[in-house]
Amino acid sequence: MFDLYIANKNYSSWSLRPWVLMKALEIPFNEHLMPFEGGTGASHATFTRFSPSGLVPCLVEVTDEGELAVWDSLAIVEYLAEQHANVWPSDKAARAWARSATAEMHSSFSALRGDCPMNCGMRVKLNSLSANLKADLARVDALWQQGLERFGGPFLAGETFSAVDAFYAPVAFRMQTFSLPVSEKSRAYVERLLALPAMQAWYQAALEEPWRESLHEADTLKNGTVTADHRKA
Amino acid sequence: MFDLYIANKNYSSWSLRPWVLMKALEIPFNEHLMPFEGGTGASHATFTRFSPSGLVPCLVEVTDEGELAVWDSLAIVEYLAEQHANVWPSDKAARAWARSATAEMHSSFSALRGDCPMNCGMRVKLNSLSANLKADLARVDALWQQGLERFGGPFLAGETFSAVDAFYAPVAFRMQTFSLPVSEKSRAYVERLLALPAMQAWYQAALEEPWRESLHEADTLKNGTVTADHRKA
Repeated sequence: MFDLYIANKNYSSWSLRPWVLMKALEIPFNEHLMPFEGGTGASHATFTRFSPSGLVPCLVEVTDEGELAVWDSLAIVEYLAEQHANVWPSDKAARAWARSATAEMHSSFSALRGDCPMNCGMRVKLNSLSANLKADLARVDALWQQGLERFGGPFLAGETFSAVDAFYAPVAFRMQTFSLPVSEKSRAYVERLLALPAMQAWYQAALEEPWRESLHEADTLKNGTVTADHRKA
Repeated sequence: MFDLYIANKNYSSWSLRPWVLMKALEIPFNEHLMPFEGGTGASHATFTRFSPSGLVPCLVEVTDEGELAVWDSLAIVEYLAEQHANVWPSDKAARAWARSATAEMHSSFSALRGDCPMNCGMRVKLNSLSANLKADLARVDALWQQGLERFGGPFLAGETFSAVDAFYAPVAFRMQTFSLPVSEKSRAYVERLLALPAMQAWYQAALEEPWRESLHEADTLKNGTVTADHRKA
């Protein structure tokens, strides 16, 4: 059995990746939600109790060799792919594309991340889009359109939801929160992601969370104004 | 046969990762070196001719399904691991650890990257170490010591050079250039990396490169002074 350590569903984009993948693929796990304390940095000391890097997500499995901790979203994906089908597409070309697009999300898009933090329940009107944000959006848009066209959709690398969709799932919430402009094809893909049962479950749980973490809240509004807050607690 | 597109050996830390892995594992490839033009950003348009993201490294293989481009260092590693032994350790626990440490390098350590750019031929005395740089160094040091102790060395995940060593290979050059302080165990590991034939070959080629790219040069000296420049051209 797996134990998956995550942070706030409302804020933690990196946590969403393995969570939504495991839910979509029906891989059972025990969820451990550890709320952020004063942003991500201040949580570091607490999180090192279960995660060697002090970061979430972290997957823990008790195996014959002892307790194995896998402390990064992409490492978790590859760890799961060794044991479960459909984490990656079975077609070689689709798999190579999916791994490249996933790794690009893992290391890039710093403007999209910095300018548009994940804050699932909020709706924000941005005052302006920075040049770097526009460039990141153009790249995401091009990448999604390429995948959807080349592999036939409805998901990025073909017929089934795979790790590459899980890695772009937080971007769907960011696009919803900040009404980010993309092509019609990409917008339809965002709607498909948001409608998935696993994404709906995450979103509803995020809305029920009682915590307001001041740094994430300030970050969300640093270049825009609130138009709605759908959080219930 | 593989085609590997890289940028300047003196500067391109991301290019070094798959290059040194393929050399160390004796996986044949054609090397295509495309020098940076006005930093990494300005090279984007040129690099999109061979790399969908406009970034290096990019691995291209002609297969039965056509030409496959794999455009990220970590995706390249996983693509190679499907076809070649020893990319990752064969032991499950070592492999999970190696993948986590590799992914952490792929997405983190922004202060180490920003404050200490790879510039193989240069030796620089830093004026001071920022708090974030110290934190990154402490984490790298702890991670390396953990791997070396847990899996017995001489490499991070055991007896043989694997992808996790390839991912930290650029850090060895950064440590050499900026004389960064780490534990004795980590310093010895840096020396072992630098002494590898593949690392020596990369280093000698870097010293022979005629190009000086002004943004990389300025970045190298933004918080320090040159103590030596071993480049020959």
